[in-house]
Amino acid sequence: MSLVYLDNNATTMVAPEVLEAMLPYFKGEYGNPSSIYDLAHGANLAVKKSREIIADFLGAKDPKEIIFTSCGSESANTAIKGVLDVNRNKKHIITTRVEHPCVLNLYKDLEKRGYQVSWIDVDSKGDLDIGSLLEAITPDTVLVSVMMANNETGTIYPVDKISEAVKMQNPDTKVFVDGVQAAGKIPINLKETKIDLFGISGHKFHAPKGVGALYVKSGTMISPLIVGGHQERGKRAGTENVPYIVGMATAAKLAAENLKDELTRVKSLRDKLENGILSNIKNAVLNSRGSVRVPNTTNIGFQYIEGELILLHLNDEGICASSGSACTSGSLEPSHVLRAQGVPFTSLHGSIRFSLSRYTTEEDIDYTIEKLPAIIKKLAKISPFQKELNEIFK
Amino acid sequence: MSLVYLDNNATTMVAPEVLEAMLPYFKGEYGNPSSIYDLAHGANLAVKKSREIIADFLGAKDPKEIIFTSCGSESANTAIKGVLDVNRNKKHIITTRVEHPCVLNLYKDLEKRGYQVSWIDVDSKGDLDIGSLLEAITPDTVLVSVMMANNETGTIYPVDKISEAVKMQNPDTKVFVDGVQAAGKIPINLKETKIDLFGISGHKFHAPKGVGALYVKSGTMISPLIVGGHQERGKRAGTENVPYIVGMATAAKLAAENLKDELTRVKSLRDKLENGILSNIKNAVLNSRGSVRVPNTTNIGFQYIEGELILLHLNDEGICASSGSACTSGSLEPSHVLRAQGVPFTSLHGSIRFSLSRYTTEEDIDYTIEKLPAIIKKLAKISPFQKELNEIFK
Repeated sequence: MSLVYLDNNATTMVAPEVLEAMLPYFKGEYGNPSSIYDLAHGANLAVKKSREIIADFLGAKDPKEIIFTSCGSESANTAIKGVLDVNRNKKHIITTRVEHPCVLNLYKDLEKRGYQVSWIDVDSKGDLDIGSLLEAITPDTVLVSVMMANNETGTIYPVDKISEAVKMQNPDTKVFVDGVQAAGKIPINLKETKIDLFGISGHKFHAPKGVGALYVKSGTMISPLIVGGHQERGKRAGTENVPYIVGMATAAKLAAENLKDELTRVKSLRDKLENGILSNIKNAVLNSRGSVRVPNTTNIGFQYIEGELILLHLNDEGICASSGSACTSGSLEPSHVLRAQGVPFTSLHGSIRFSLSRYTTEEDIDYTIEKLPAIIKKLAKISPFQKELNEIFK
Repeated sequence: MSLVYLDNNATTMVAPEVLEAMLPYFKGEYGNPSSIYDLAHGANLAVKKSREIIADFLGAKDPKEIIFTSCGSESANTAIKGVLDVNRNKKHIITTRVEHPCVLNLYKDLEKRGYQVSWIDVDSKGDLDIGSLLEAITPDTVLVSVMMANNETGTIYPVDKISEAVKMQNPDTKVFVDGVQAAGKIPINLKETKIDLFGISGHKFHAPKGVGALYVKSGTMISPLIVGGHQERGKRAGTENVPYIVGMATAAKLAAENLKDELTRVKSLRDKLENGILSNIKNAVLNSRGSVRVPNTTNIGFQYIEGELILLHLNDEGICASSGSACTSGSLEPSHVLRAQGVPFTSLHGSIRFSLSRYTTEEDIDYTIEKLPAIIKKLAKISPFQKELNEIFK
């Protein structure tokens, strides 16, 4: 049985070209980029080139605006704690109720440490209440933090416009954007925005797990999270992970080349999957219907069915999907994102995220559309909500 | 010209077995360990096994005491900031003048943030003034931080005995040991010590750059540095770097198997190099003479010669060595470690570290002993200290 991998928002396969590009740095090119002998020059140059590629990928003005990190969570922690540390007199933060756990949990932690956090709501489509966000800004607002694309539903937030509007209200407020789920899926051009900090994670676009980057706009001051050596211009200590940095740059180049494919072919596969499920399975409800979404993601609720059971049955058929962020797996609490959108309990517990990539094939989608109805039918039979299901399926 | 790599304290080549072990996780086994489908089980199991191997490697009681990080600097920052954060009422720290920059610079930063840091001296051999260290402990001492082996000279500090003595003075004081330069070079058995936190870095023992670990003794409370998902039992958020975690575990197994070779063959090669240089080059002076050192490191001062010039000439002969920590390269300040040992200015600026590994061959050593005298002779001719050099070489 071949694998149908529809959980690309959790992690992606490493592109073969990425592995190929990394291999020399796992072999002969092992010098420490900070060393002065010839062996180190190759590594040093590779990091420099990679920084230029990532700067291009994000539309940064200057490669110096890119800091390499070990993951999206580190990027977010560096951005947020780094900005707060250099603005210690200001204690107000604005964010959304639908951020990724790595951001959400940090703000919950900061609330316990004396920060006042304004949590902005989303509507039933998943769209952000931008009016409330702007109204919440005060002279004490040190940071506004909005993700570019939601990991669970794919909903895109207009972070460029938000950043403009925030700066109009308070030019000193810094704007951090968690771009982890946007990079490689939609165009990003940071120099055209007022965004100060923007984090990405390599393993969401076919680089390995364990590498990320943080864009820090020229002139934006942050304290380093990892203090120590001079690496990353004093903003992130630690010997550079040369292979992964090269790998992420290669992945970024591939993602840029494939962006059109993502926006057309991948999108049409996603739409086919979505329509196939919605038209064949009567208790299926699309979450975030009507919001502008990244092209690879769909989140569908199956009313009165337990999501974990659906996933296990999909797994039996060789299909990988998920019921929310992998970072919250094992937790029995339903998705904070779908709750924030007001998804009713009837489909909240049975919501499944399917996330595609450029490696997804038409066969993968056809196979999933073929297998899913029988799974839902089987699970409907053992659901405690027989009356309600009979009503739907009648 | 083949390469003679004698800078293994800066970074090491990735062992071929390590690359081999990582490859499956760059290919088919790309699941996110937190996901619930079968694809993720392999990754999850690999992380679990690797944790057991690293626990064994460090002599930890329980794999749960191991946290995976992205580097030695992250391990140190997590340990230090993590302990301080849960003991916010205590403001006194004790450390040494010879710590690695990632630790040293963090304490300098903490001094600016209201911490009182006692800096313990070393003597001319490099040995620590343990009496002063113990006398410095007060009820307010939250942390004692001593490296296990010095990166520049190889001097070993008796951290097991120090940890015992610290706990006798103040059982509440936590002990952090930077073990980055000890792991793989000398035996480590943490369960037999009172050490609370111990950091290592994979790329110092033939794993790739970009992975490390932190031992946190059971019962020791720390706050996470990277807040977010549930990974590493809440002590380090971020999707696990499965390939590198597997790679570091493989490297640890190899290092354990090769420890005897390190303590015998590598040591005898180091001794041969050291003796060869000291007996053939009249202005060569051994730094840390008489201290107990790791078997792979020697640090030799060449009086009245500029260290950077020696390195460049060694590079021309295909020999890689260094003049201190790679993390301080580019800085023209002489080594803080050698200054702390009172190395006189006559050899301070011309001190070179040679650090071997199990891949170092007798030919490498013979070649270096053969090439170095001519380099020193040539540089002696252009030194501004002709009178002094004539006196030595007469």
